[in-house]
Amino acid sequence: MGEFSELATQVMARLETLGTLSQDPHCLDRRYLTDQHKLANQLASGWMIEAGMTTWQDAVGNIWGRYTSSVPNAPRLIMGSHLDTVPNGGKYDGMLGVVAAISLVNMFDGTQTKFPFHIDIVGFCDEEGTRFGTTLLGSRALTGKWQDNWRHLKDVNGISLAQAMTNFGLNFDEVASACVPRTDLLGYIELHIEQGPVLEQENLPVGVVSAIAGAKRFNLHLEGMAGHAGTVPMSMRHDALSACAEMILAVEHISQHRPGVVATVGKIENFPNGVNVISGRTLFSLDIRSEDDALRDTVLAEILQNIEAIATKRQVKLTVEQTHSAPAVHCDKLLKQALIDSVSAIGLTPLVLASGAGHDAMAMADICPVAMLFTRCKGGISHHPGESITQEDVAASLAVLNNTIRTLKHA
Amino acid sequence: MGEFSELATQVMARLETLGTLSQDPHCLDRRYLTDQHKLANQLASGWMIEAGMTTWQDAVGNIWGRYTSSVPNAPRLIMGSHLDTVPNGGKYDGMLGVVAAISLVNMFDGTQTKFPFHIDIVGFCDEEGTRFGTTLLGSRALTGKWQDNWRHLKDVNGISLAQAMTNFGLNFDEVASACVPRTDLLGYIELHIEQGPVLEQENLPVGVVSAIAGAKRFNLHLEGMAGHAGTVPMSMRHDALSACAEMILAVEHISQHRPGVVATVGKIENFPNGVNVISGRTLFSLDIRSEDDALRDTVLAEILQNIEAIATKRQVKLTVEQTHSAPAVHCDKLLKQALIDSVSAIGLTPLVLASGAGHDAMAMADICPVAMLFTRCKGGISHHPGESITQEDVAASLAVLNNTIRTLKHA
Repeated sequence: MGEFSELATQVMARLETLGTLSQDPHCLDRRYLTDQHKLANQLASGWMIEAGMTTWQDAVGNIWGRYTSSVPNAPRLIMGSHLDTVPNGGKYDGMLGVVAAISLVNMFDGTQTKFPFHIDIVGFCDEEGTRFGTTLLGSRALTGKWQDNWRHLKDVNGISLAQAMTNFGLNFDEVASACVPRTDLLGYIELHIEQGPVLEQENLPVGVVSAIAGAKRFNLHLEGMAGHAGTVPMSMRHDALSACAEMILAVEHISQHRPGVVATVGKIENFPNGVNVISGRTLFSLDIRSEDDALRDTVLAEILQNIEAIATKRQVKLTVEQTHSAPAVHCDKLLKQALIDSVSAIGLTPLVLASGAGHDAMAMADICPVAMLFTRCKGGISHHPGESITQEDVAASLAVLNNTIRTLKHA
Repeated sequence: MGEFSELATQVMARLETLGTLSQDPHCLDRRYLTDQHKLANQLASGWMIEAGMTTWQDAVGNIWGRYTSSVPNAPRLIMGSHLDTVPNGGKYDGMLGVVAAISLVNMFDGTQTKFPFHIDIVGFCDEEGTRFGTTLLGSRALTGKWQDNWRHLKDVNGISLAQAMTNFGLNFDEVASACVPRTDLLGYIELHIEQGPVLEQENLPVGVVSAIAGAKRFNLHLEGMAGHAGTVPMSMRHDALSACAEMILAVEHISQHRPGVVATVGKIENFPNGVNVISGRTLFSLDIRSEDDALRDTVLAEILQNIEAIATKRQVKLTVEQTHSAPAVHCDKLLKQALIDSVSAIGLTPLVLASGAGHDAMAMADICPVAMLFTRCKGGISHHPGESITQEDVAASLAVLNNTIRTLKHA
């Protein structure tokens, strides 16, 4: 991997530079349609041109570069990830996949290596959805899944998506022109940090993604009976918070015993939330994910059945509201196998793992085969300034991608 | 109890009138040293004078009336409760004990019934502590437990206790003169609504209080490891909220199996509290009460041991901070027995129960024997506009107090 060590140095340095472009002077925060979005596109575009690519910005604000094929009417291999961040985010989530792809092409260009397909690199403008509350705006614009009623989505300052696009120099009504024709697409390959602790635990620099987990989300509402903490005997209580506690443990217990599923209660609100008042009302969230939709729904049914039984037993009123549902997206068999073979080829154990987090690849799967490679990140931490990766792991990631692209060449 | 039915009508009507004196036009809210405090004192004073009593306001703002004894140098029997309310409170918590005592004396005065002791009725000015965050200000002023540093306590508008007293026409530096000499005190008898559901469940109008429970309170702090709800496998989590859930159930389970103790987790705060983020930090409260301090501390030790074991098992960092500790206050044997005998005398089953809530009697126990009678309240509800009692139960309460006072006469 020696040859990729130097390239990885370039990648790490460029990620540092990108990490300085923030709308907030105190932390990294780069949202869709801001001045910093524009600057990030310009910076990436400059690197693409340096790598021998032709560049353009599409109608939704994604930045593109093409490393032109040696053959006429060539198909397209798309690589990339996103350039936006969450507020107080890290330097690697998203950016790694764009910058690493550009450096690879830079290397191909330096050695005059040509392919029977175009390599199109995309830096998506909005994956996190932090500004307008709707995720994957950049990649969904490519798939024809852009929705007209999104024009009214507003940011925290009350600026609509349509207005923000105008201010940026784009036109909401022309987003359809960002659509990518489904013909002649070899696929989409995304490199991304794992955002989880599995690779670190397995002591592996990279992992191949099997699927992006499907998620369902719920708000659960419990209505018990508030009361004085001193005067209501234990046997006469209908404590909403205690009921919630039993439900949280049920969620944990059931999902712990069903490999391939993760279920989380991340949010809780309790009323009246007084030190000396028995809880009368508790709201909590449930998030359940799996790469296997059927398994997820089976486990979900078991969880909800348990939660209902607890509510009945405790005479606490339960209301369940579903707020989100997305099916799992499976990576393409051939592309995934190409990544696995490339991991083996550089002497590493090819670990295949599901992605519990969402990615642009989810949207891209609508129009072409997708595959993802994960890079180990420290402590599994992401969406945080503590996000951290090593140059060695980036070198391994570059080596795997290089092998994969060359495999496709010979396919 | 026929003769007390009419008297109960007067009590109920006067409680309605008192219930109109509120600093908030939308709900009942009458706090210490407000115009409504002054009006309530004037109203009670008028009723006392009408009952043949001499009245005065003491140096802290409590209103007093004396029904003078027939003998010279007579001892004092103090009766009463408090006239302040919580915000959005009910009409009976506190007021019942003042108004019922005045009506009883009214009856004694009408029949020229005299006693070998003064009957001193006190309407305490602050029991709830809602304005300055410190409870029992009125009754504690009688016991010499007033603290000089309370002068700096501030209300929500930044007005200090000392300033508010000046505005009211009192002088913080003269509060000591409200102290009641401990000699010649027969005792303090307080009638109060139960604020719990036991009498209702037992189908009894009144109950005799054995003791006011001692309470300890804690803030517990759990530090786990936040993470992405999709990417961290169940087996690698250190979910602070799940740990908290297991602790809440332990608190409930242990106290359910130890009669005479109630333990409550009423407050919880979770961080970052996001639908898709594993909880990294959770704070929660523990309130534990019993009329038996030793039993309470034994159960508390068991609870804390369990909580520590859960934290250790889950590798979550636990910090426990005690915020409050008050011993139980036991009612006087003779006064309590007089109440029990009086309940039996009017043909009711004398149920003896502990008070889980705090009362002015707690402070009064510092200077004299205390006893309390509880009146059934609907659904155990208090500190709420839904607070409700019946005229029949007030009649029974008056009958019991009447018997008790006459018993003391013959003691």
